[in-house]
Amino acid sequence: MDYGSGKERCVNKVKTMDKKGKKTTTIDFERIFHPKKLAIVGVSAEGSVRGFGIGMLMALRTMNFEGEIFPVNPKGGNFAGLDFYRKVEDIPGTIDFAIIAVVAKEVPAALEACRKKGAAGAEILSAGFSELGTEEGLLLENEVREIAKKGIRVVGPNCFGIYCPRSGLTMLPGHDLSRQSGPVAFLSQSGGMAIDLAHKGKWMGLKFSKVVSFGNGADLREMDLLPYFADDQETRVIGMYVEGVKNGDDFFGAIKKTTEKKPVVVCKGGLSSAGKRMIVTHTASMGGSRLIWQSVLRQVNAIQVQDLKELAEACLAFCFLPQGVYKNISVVGGGGALGVTACDAAENFGMEVPPLSQNIRERVEKLLPKPGSSGTNPIDVANPYVEPKILKEVLRTVAVDEQIDLQIIISLLYHYKTMTRMIGKPVAQVTPYRELAEALSAVVKETKKPFVIVLANPKKGMDDLDIVEMLALARREFLSRGLPVFDDLYEAIRAVGHVNTYYEKRERYE
Amino acid sequence: MDYGSGKERCVNKVKTMDKKGKKTTTIDFERIFHPKKLAIVGVSAEGSVRGFGIGMLMALRTMNFEGEIFPVNPKGGNFAGLDFYRKVEDIPGTIDFAIIAVVAKEVPAALEACRKKGAAGAEILSAGFSELGTEEGLLLENEVREIAKKGIRVVGPNCFGIYCPRSGLTMLPGHDLSRQSGPVAFLSQSGGMAIDLAHKGKWMGLKFSKVVSFGNGADLREMDLLPYFADDQETRVIGMYVEGVKNGDDFFGAIKKTTEKKPVVVCKGGLSSAGKRMIVTHTASMGGSRLIWQSVLRQVNAIQVQDLKELAEACLAFCFLPQGVYKNISVVGGGGALGVTACDAAENFGMEVPPLSQNIRERVEKLLPKPGSSGTNPIDVANPYVEPKILKEVLRTVAVDEQIDLQIIISLLYHYKTMTRMIGKPVAQVTPYRELAEALSAVVKETKKPFVIVLANPKKGMDDLDIVEMLALARREFLSRGLPVFDDLYEAIRAVGHVNTYYEKRERYE
Repeated sequence: MDYGSGKERCVNKVKTMDKKGKKTTTIDFERIFHPKKLAIVGVSAEGSVRGFGIGMLMALRTMNFEGEIFPVNPKGGNFAGLDFYRKVEDIPGTIDFAIIAVVAKEVPAALEACRKKGAAGAEILSAGFSELGTEEGLLLENEVREIAKKGIRVVGPNCFGIYCPRSGLTMLPGHDLSRQSGPVAFLSQSGGMAIDLAHKGKWMGLKFSKVVSFGNGADLREMDLLPYFADDQETRVIGMYVEGVKNGDDFFGAIKKTTEKKPVVVCKGGLSSAGKRMIVTHTASMGGSRLIWQSVLRQVNAIQVQDLKELAEACLAFCFLPQGVYKNISVVGGGGALGVTACDAAENFGMEVPPLSQNIRERVEKLLPKPGSSGTNPIDVANPYVEPKILKEVLRTVAVDEQIDLQIIISLLYHYKTMTRMIGKPVAQVTPYRELAEALSAVVKETKKPFVIVLANPKKGMDDLDIVEMLALARREFLSRGLPVFDDLYEAIRAVGHVNTYYEKRERYE
Repeated sequence: MDYGSGKERCVNKVKTMDKKGKKTTTIDFERIFHPKKLAIVGVSAEGSVRGFGIGMLMALRTMNFEGEIFPVNPKGGNFAGLDFYRKVEDIPGTIDFAIIAVVAKEVPAALEACRKKGAAGAEILSAGFSELGTEEGLLLENEVREIAKKGIRVVGPNCFGIYCPRSGLTMLPGHDLSRQSGPVAFLSQSGGMAIDLAHKGKWMGLKFSKVVSFGNGADLREMDLLPYFADDQETRVIGMYVEGVKNGDDFFGAIKKTTEKKPVVVCKGGLSSAGKRMIVTHTASMGGSRLIWQSVLRQVNAIQVQDLKELAEACLAFCFLPQGVYKNISVVGGGGALGVTACDAAENFGMEVPPLSQNIRERVEKLLPKPGSSGTNPIDVANPYVEPKILKEVLRTVAVDEQIDLQIIISLLYHYKTMTRMIGKPVAQVTPYRELAEALSAVVKETKKPFVIVLANPKKGMDDLDIVEMLALARREFLSRGLPVFDDLYEAIRAVGHVNTYYEKRERYE
């Protein structure tokens, strides 16, 4: 399972009709996501941490952005070896994309200047538009929309911009995001959700094709981005944080077309009455009723999740599990109560934890320490120190059972901390996480049945930060071998359930 | 809010009738939870990490257990300066409590020897009883039960034992639990759940009166422990992990009596069909239907939770919030999407996020940075670097609004990592978490309206362990001032919802 090898480079030109159907706008997403020449309009030379423009300039440098950067400030100046241009017009030649971070009332002029400079698009980070609910804000946003119609596509305003790992284009305040590309696209009305997911992905093992925070969505929004990502060869799963949409029928139609090609995971915010009031001030959108959203999302085979964590976990499962439906699971490790939890969660999400067939059960039981262990499924290994090579034999044996589609391993590696006191070595050294990762990886190769790993840890206090570190290292080992890791058993099973829901329905219609 | 000052010491003698109603057994819980003389039967002198007996001996020493320890091993020997007794009978005088960790078939003899030595109780860690489903196992457990009837109360078998911070009695494998006593009691059929909660409590800020893992529950179980904890002055909230009960009517009756005095939070495992099958092999109990449990637990005003995390969070809210119902909440910080999430979660759990009254809103907006901030409730501070002294003024102002019962602060302290690059100091030094904790604490004192703090963090990878550490330090600062901390906004609101559910119903019946 290797995603985003970086070999292919996708150039997409998508044609969309504008609302009035009068003319066709060509969106050059390639120049937007991978700009060779990038203007940043609105950088203050003081280097304050609060300036979005200077923040972006620094972040792009730290990320080793691959294009050329042209900072613009009417007072001139320079920063980190880059001279500032006083006007957009002063930049030599044309530009591909612009980041606009001037005060709201100066945005239309800046946008128009970028358009005239040939920019395919611009992201407007500035707030102070329709989200204020004032006439001035609405008028300004209309001005932006009118300029966009003339041929520059706009992300925002009131957004955190675009993160594209392949080019190093980064969103606010993401100076420390990964440069590794991958199969997940995320489009979000909320900048906070977008940057949070980008950060979560970094340690959870989610790699992104593109993340787009489009804020008020004056121009480019879900209706343009969904068709793009549906066809984007780099993107295999699409996540969305939606507060409201301009036209429900169009939106659900676009999702339906997309889910025929790849999974779409949707977190809908603002389903409560207070939430609806709130999203008006947040991104100036209209909400919708809980029941309608639930039923329509189900109809169009989108996966609805409750929060960003569930969205990230669903994307992880979609990325790491081969396409398919996993109805029967085995659960190994973790003790009796976690086995009970596994059964409850599996039933809740439409799966089963079937008893192993008699001869396999007997073979498993011969491998397990006594007493306290159990070879029924869930399999209780009774001891957190069972060696990886024994576990490997257990897992190979279980995989032979034809009933089993997927195995879940609950690994209580944190227990190894207890050993450090006796052995006098750091916990990261005594814990056999690499051996375990190698063992699991070998079993997957041999049996072709996927694994899900749960790395539980109840110990996170000041005394146990060495455990937290060891588990971060362990997670990296598992992920690097294509093995997905979750913190929590219930959440892991829920994520697999989402994969099942999607592919079951897709199979039915294919 | 200071719980468990350690001044009072509760001595409880509870009288219970045995099943046949023929005789009365006096349970001396004092001698069980705070034994002056403790035998450990079954310690191997090899010091293997896998021996439960030697593990307990070491753990008790590390915990500075306050009583005298008498290890017993038929071969004699010694460990860490303690000579082993060859027989229980050889221990001088009487004993108060015993930890039994010999193989199952030797357990009855060991238990009988402890009874004759005057022990008030014993915990049997050994597995190999009714959970096996074998005739031999059932017979052995019956033998244990018969000996218990003669006057020694038994915790287990197939359990992790008792954790009592006040005495330093600890459960398996808890050498590193807190010695600070507090208001939470936890009774659990699962040893894994018990030790996990004890560990979680340590960093989450839950302090325990007693944690009892009773495994198969051959003798002492929920029916004896609930009445004890209902009257225990040290205990203010009771958590339970239940797989099955012997008699449903008795059980729900006991809960009802208990919830009239204090909240009981119940996690019921094994509500699925596979889960039911599983709990037979785990703790040899009978399950029950999901709907019956849900409705009956609601009737007896117990709080049902889905997993241990939700249980821990509910207990945290019960411990840190003054008794009461918090219907109207304000939410400060975190940006627009988190505000939307807050509204959705609040509605989901029966609360409201009402708009602030006009004059208060105006006062708040004057304090906030522009643009991008919003003074409606939820209040979007638009910037993670708003100084604690400004936040303090915002919170004081909001508290004046008579509608507001409780304030939730979403603190995105992890953003300060960005500053470390510029300032060149560790993130724990540049982040003003102490100032923030002091500010919140002062506002609580002044306004008498409680706070809930959400310390979100999307950054947990190898590059960001300094953030993880800083947040662990920050959590400690908040907790030490009586301010409860949650990782997640939705979960925080859910926990407050549980407090509301309990006190609303209790008020209605009082």
